[in-house]
Amino acid sequence: MAIEWSGLAPELLVDLDRTHRGRLGVQLQAALRKAVRSGRLTAGERLPSSREMARELGVSRGLVQDCFEQLAAEGYLVARAGSATRVAPTPAPPSTPPALRSVRVQPVAVDFRPGLPDLTSFPMRDWLWALGEVGRTAAADAVGYGDPRGRPELHAVVAAYLRRVRGAVAGDEQLVVCGGFTQGLHLALGALARSGHSSVGIEDPGHRDWDAIAARAGLRAIPLPVDRRGADVASLTDADVRAVLLTPAHQTPTGVVLAPERRREILRWADSRDGVVIEDDYDAEFRYDRQAVGSLQGLAPDRVMTIGSVSKSLAPALRLGWIVCPPALLGAVTAEKDLADRGSPALDQLALARLMESGRYDRHLRRMRRVYAARRRALVEALAEHAPGARLDGLAAGFHAVLRLPSGADERTVVAAARQRSVAVYPMGQYRLGVGDHPPALVLGFGNLSEPSIKRGIAAIADLLGA
Amino acid sequence: MAIEWSGLAPELLVDLDRTHRGRLGVQLQAALRKAVRSGRLTAGERLPSSREMARELGVSRGLVQDCFEQLAAEGYLVARAGSATRVAPTPAPPSTPPALRSVRVQPVAVDFRPGLPDLTSFPMRDWLWALGEVGRTAAADAVGYGDPRGRPELHAVVAAYLRRVRGAVAGDEQLVVCGGFTQGLHLALGALARSGHSSVGIEDPGHRDWDAIAARAGLRAIPLPVDRRGADVASLTDADVRAVLLTPAHQTPTGVVLAPERRREILRWADSRDGVVIEDDYDAEFRYDRQAVGSLQGLAPDRVMTIGSVSKSLAPALRLGWIVCPPALLGAVTAEKDLADRGSPALDQLALARLMESGRYDRHLRRMRRVYAARRRALVEALAEHAPGARLDGLAAGFHAVLRLPSGADERTVVAAARQRSVAVYPMGQYRLGVGDHPPALVLGFGNLSEPSIKRGIAAIADLLGA
Repeated sequence: MAIEWSGLAPELLVDLDRTHRGRLGVQLQAALRKAVRSGRLTAGERLPSSREMARELGVSRGLVQDCFEQLAAEGYLVARAGSATRVAPTPAPPSTPPALRSVRVQPVAVDFRPGLPDLTSFPMRDWLWALGEVGRTAAADAVGYGDPRGRPELHAVVAAYLRRVRGAVAGDEQLVVCGGFTQGLHLALGALARSGHSSVGIEDPGHRDWDAIAARAGLRAIPLPVDRRGADVASLTDADVRAVLLTPAHQTPTGVVLAPERRREILRWADSRDGVVIEDDYDAEFRYDRQAVGSLQGLAPDRVMTIGSVSKSLAPALRLGWIVCPPALLGAVTAEKDLADRGSPALDQLALARLMESGRYDRHLRRMRRVYAARRRALVEALAEHAPGARLDGLAAGFHAVLRLPSGADERTVVAAARQRSVAVYPMGQYRLGVGDHPPALVLGFGNLSEPSIKRGIAAIADLLGA
Repeated sequence: MAIEWSGLAPELLVDLDRTHRGRLGVQLQAALRKAVRSGRLTAGERLPSSREMARELGVSRGLVQDCFEQLAAEGYLVARAGSATRVAPTPAPPSTPPALRSVRVQPVAVDFRPGLPDLTSFPMRDWLWALGEVGRTAAADAVGYGDPRGRPELHAVVAAYLRRVRGAVAGDEQLVVCGGFTQGLHLALGALARSGHSSVGIEDPGHRDWDAIAARAGLRAIPLPVDRRGADVASLTDADVRAVLLTPAHQTPTGVVLAPERRREILRWADSRDGVVIEDDYDAEFRYDRQAVGSLQGLAPDRVMTIGSVSKSLAPALRLGWIVCPPALLGAVTAEKDLADRGSPALDQLALARLMESGRYDRHLRRMRRVYAARRRALVEALAEHAPGARLDGLAAGFHAVLRLPSGADERTVVAAARQRSVAVYPMGQYRLGVGDHPPALVLGFGNLSEPSIKRGIAAIADLLGA
């Protein structure tokens, strides 16, 4: 039924669907809210009395009165005892939300996007098993607000794992669970800023967002040059900085490992100025030629804050990681986590602990190491076959490799030409902070590509890569 | 077997467990790392040759060489071609982590802690069902890095819910999924700071942490007085502030609802200075006397940013919520989320969407409304029986009530005396930002207490509450 009331708001139509008798009040409220918002009912306008409106709509007067009262409480109407109900003076009607910027997406057949593990290999069945175990056994307070540092069960399992596999010196009580590496960094830098730091050295080339995350924490980012032996703190000798952010096990993106003397030099540097090293323990699970280099944290647990996650070892979407805090910074990091989000989701934390202690996590890692090693071989072989002049840099580790382009080549031209052939590759330039001159190179991720895709992709763009 | 090598480090004992032959290298590495860290092997000290050590330990020379090489790469040892392997010069050995501050916990039999829903009622079976559905049907890219705003499936379900139940004007594309209210606020204030705001008005009394969260975003918090009609922006007329944070549906902690003319006044205030209202849509699901007042956002979608979560309706441990962004702030909030943690866990988001669209979420809410209404009645009845002079303030809503104490009573004395009887109650003072004089009161949470516990708790402390 549609009605229109004369002299008041002729264009106002209230459509009530009589098949849902119980919802008539809700429908009437919605119609009136909409009429006010859209400007069809204008500020100050008098509404019919509840008696009139009830009669016209064929509903009870109580229903209309409830509706007026509700909308008055919400600020849409003004009701004063002894006078008519009127439309409240409201701000101008809202504009229509503009469409979100839409990115024109070119079809990509083979995407060498760095930083992605194989998504089809996520052990969903094991993950659901672990969640089921947690659901069956967890106490009620597991679903409450817990300690912002996270669940003690996960602290214990991860600390033991880091001691065993990464040579870390980590007591359970030093861990703070976080939502992946990015949040870990956000919290770590926030804690440093609150502890009196005003700047942080970050690797160049490195992850561009780190700059922006540092800025949000109120820290100035100082580029730290990376050469074939990793990051070099010598350039920081005169700088007013007491903290650096490093990827020692497998530098992002160059793929070099931090050389032993550089490791010592950095710790000496930190020691000499009461400094802090934030270690991104990136990719450490996936080294194919030999055992991964141990965590820097094991050498100087009072100076090094290590951040790890399961984004590469399980899946990015889990958003779970950890910070191993030097004792002096544990309180500050905990406070940051508490005020950032109160803690990470507890059931997921418990499920990860269960997965790790059941041995299923290790089994998955062993399997994935073989998968990724084979993919890397496929990349090396495809380059040897189709672009024999091309040179691959970086460790046999992780899911990405750095491909040197002929000197004088323009990264952007190569990237654009490859995209024309439906192959996405990524310029080293997007990792650069400084303005220095660097040899042109591409960063190729192979973690989420099958071996045939890798070969097909390289074959399609080989002529763009050669000398 | 334990060996000791003479002239080098007589106190160094390397215990190798021969029953795990395959792990001998790992054991040797661990023992040497430990010896360097503990200072038992000192900087510069010469190690035996790999040949000697292999003979003494009865292992292969290759194993010892691999071990030396690994520890050199990690910075523990220095190996130079043609000369002996030595212990690397390292920073001073780490101090033992100090014990964490331990809080002496008094046994609490009845805890009126505010802000907790009933944890035993969490629908674990439904949640696991929803996760199982997601696991069975989700595409592989659901476990990758998604849009930092969250999963479109959840945007659609939550936006529809807010339109239907809260009278919000929310297009799916205006939502950003976050990790509960606290993170939502963190992101919202960060976005305001990046958009040129330098201060924010916050309710007093209110949540104390909000002050700290504002400070972290670089915003000055300006107390906004709350009276029986809710927050009053009149005091902000002359202040240099263009943003306020409000709990309109059920003020935290006073429990008052923002009066209709105040709602309009606040929107006029925001409109007059191109301002923003952040709405904490707290407790809106749980009103027992009548329908909850609709979201302020519905009146001014261009001015109001609404933050909601399932911490009260399902469980805090899920850490899931949403921000409904005015179109002009959507980009800034999205950027904050991206740099804060890249996005919330995707499988949990999909499970929540599934739970809501299946009708199980609504069913749970209906059941819990009855449970909480009964608990509130139990509190009212217990007070009527045992402390007939006591006066309860605030709406029949949510899980907490405000109990006025006799004028002149000291909140802290009452809290301490109650604790002596194993009953935890919370002083209104902990919600106050200003230094003004306020009538003494307690904030009593009843969401996570059974009816008998509520009655027992009140009976035990009734004499402390009366006039």
